Amino acid sequence: MTILILGAAGMIGRKLTDRLIQEGGILKADEKLILHDIIEPEAPLNHQNYLCLSGDLAAADTVMQLAAYQPDIIFHLASMVSGEAEQNFNKGWSVNMQGSWHLCEALKHYHQASDERYRAKIIFASSIAVFGPPFPDNKLEAIHDDFLTAPQTSYGAQKAMVEMLIADYARKGYIDGLSIRLPTICVRPGKPNAAASSFFSGIIRDPLNGFDAILPVPDTVRHWHASPRSAAGFMVHAANLDTSLLGGRRSLNMPGLSCTVAEQIEALRDIAGEAVIAKIKPSPDDKIIEIVNNWPRAFQPERAISLGFRAETSFREIIEIYLEDDMPHLS
Amino acid sequence: MTILILGAAGMIGRKLTDRLIQEGGILKADEKLILHDIIEPEAPLNHQNYLCLSGDLAAADTVMQLAAYQPDIIFHLASMVSGEAEQNFNKGWSVNMQGSWHLCEALKHYHQASDERYRAKIIFASSIAVFGPPFPDNKLEAIHDDFLTAPQTSYGAQKAMVEMLIADYARKGYIDGLSIRLPTICVRPGKPNAAASSFFSGIIRDPLNGFDAILPVPDTVRHWHASPRSAAGFMVHAANLDTSLLGGRRSLNMPGLSCTVAEQIEALRDIAGEAVIAKIKPSPDDKIIEIVNNWPRAFQPERAISLGFRAETSFREIIEIYLEDDMPHLS
Repeated sequence: MTILILGAAGMIGRKLTDRLIQEGGILKADEKLILHDIIEPEAPLNHQNYLCLSGDLAAADTVMQLAAYQPDIIFHLASMVSGEAEQNFNKGWSVNMQGSWHLCEALKHYHQASDERYRAKIIFASSIAVFGPPFPDNKLEAIHDDFLTAPQTSYGAQKAMVEMLIADYARKGYIDGLSIRLPTICVRPGKPNAAASSFFSGIIRDPLNGFDAILPVPDTVRHWHASPRSAAGFMVHAANLDTSLLGGRRSLNMPGLSCTVAEQIEALRDIAGEAVIAKIKPSPDDKIIEIVNNWPRAFQPERAISLGFRAETSFREIIEIYLEDDMPHLS
Repeated sequence: MTILILGAAGMIGRKLTDRLIQEGGILKADEKLILHDIIEPEAPLNHQNYLCLSGDLAAADTVMQLAAYQPDIIFHLASMVSGEAEQNFNKGWSVNMQGSWHLCEALKHYHQASDERYRAKIIFASSIAVFGPPFPDNKLEAIHDDFLTAPQTSYGAQKAMVEMLIADYARKGYIDGLSIRLPTICVRPGKPNAAASSFFSGIIRDPLNGFDAILPVPDTVRHWHASPRSAAGFMVHAANLDTSLLGGRRSLNMPGLSCTVAEQIEALRDIAGEAVIAKIKPSPDDKIIEIVNNWPRAFQPERAISLGFRAETSFREIIEIYLEDDMPHLS
């Protein structure tokens, strides 16, 4: 068995790498792990049989070289992020859409060229960005499993289109695979970034580490979260899933937790106390408020839950996972 | 004003050409009409300022040459048909998806290159093939306006993806445009073809013209129809539509008529009598039955209706339109 992770240098890629090695179940000690990203990923800990590669997925020959390894499982996490794809239109379409199309084509090539009918299983990291407003007119505006994908960003359109590519190549038998639509991942470790969603993690992570955090939206804002641990768990669960259970619909809304910013802050207060909360500094930013108003608030991910995908059920749990997995310790 | 019709040699392309010239409203006598298809379309009747061109839309330079005319309105009806796209996977993706992407790119190029910010308005002929089962659990399994696009054919996937391309290029202001999802067009004039849907027209047209017609499905089969006249009418209405009314959702389910094959036959009996009906010969074909079972049966196209799109309200009306517009007369 050979497993390929595309986008292995990213935060979820690294969590997934650790998870595959630690848990066993998928990756045995003698099986090959190929880690790929635009920059060369770090070597994995506690696993000997690996390759670390770098390259641009938008180039067809890079993708053909990766497909030549005939990986059994491909975790496709490689993507230009939302804000960058919005700013650099051409590059976003080239990397996020054309690169994934090259991948499907390369895998079809090896499927058709191989005697034993090689068929890769792709787990595509899609996003709730495939959805745009107006959202359903129900409690919490929760998005059900047969709600339309009408993205309002280039990133979301690219994710939605790659989902359709994967579904059609899989329907024809050239590949196997599915797309999982990840919630906003919270609490992201490390430093704040330029993403409009950065504050959802920042208001928890930074005060816990003794720093002030800006809150640019009203605390009534509701959003859909899951931990980095859950994200890696979704990937592993998807890799083990019998895709014949999916019928013709190979995109799944992942479970998560719907809560308001006020509820996030309450959970932090319970865990860390008033002095930590005091480091959250409200400073409304109209641009971020406008962006966030276009984001999904809640889901009813019944299919994914019935297929055994699991996420956190309280924001307190999400904070505790940050403390266990990622909180820097005094050394 | 310059109007370009892609796919102008097809049945709807020819109806649309006639309609643009006859009705006025859109095409004035001195304005230019460019008719394009893979084979050179026939010259239009009653209009002097025209070009008839042929070429392959899958070739980027063909598309750049067309965009160089900087058409104000582009009716994009060019497509490899459903059955052919299913059989010839590579060519289907190349023509239906890559060709349309080339078109968006070429129009973006002229938008960015022109001082006056040229912005073409595209009317894309999409299809109810963007939908796949299971259909909504309501009366008639009617598909509402926010139902997901989960196509079960390559053709449907290509149509759904081009819709997303057009929506995103339009959101960024490189083009203007919208996608209209056409019902099955009935009664198609001419000879039967190899499409699985051919019989919906055949059981009306062929008996009216004195020929036997095979009915390969049970008469309980329900489907969604509109006349060729309505299809051309949708196109013209879409070209005149203020797209700011669409918000972020630039794909519209067109109105039509939901009826069973038995209801089609009853309408024909009313109009043409028992002797004509006797020419319909039931001969169940399991393969066609299976295909048709995956097709939409009915819609609730509330947005399109509120935006003024109109179709037939009885199958009798659809037959009468065939008799008026397309029935061959003894000469």
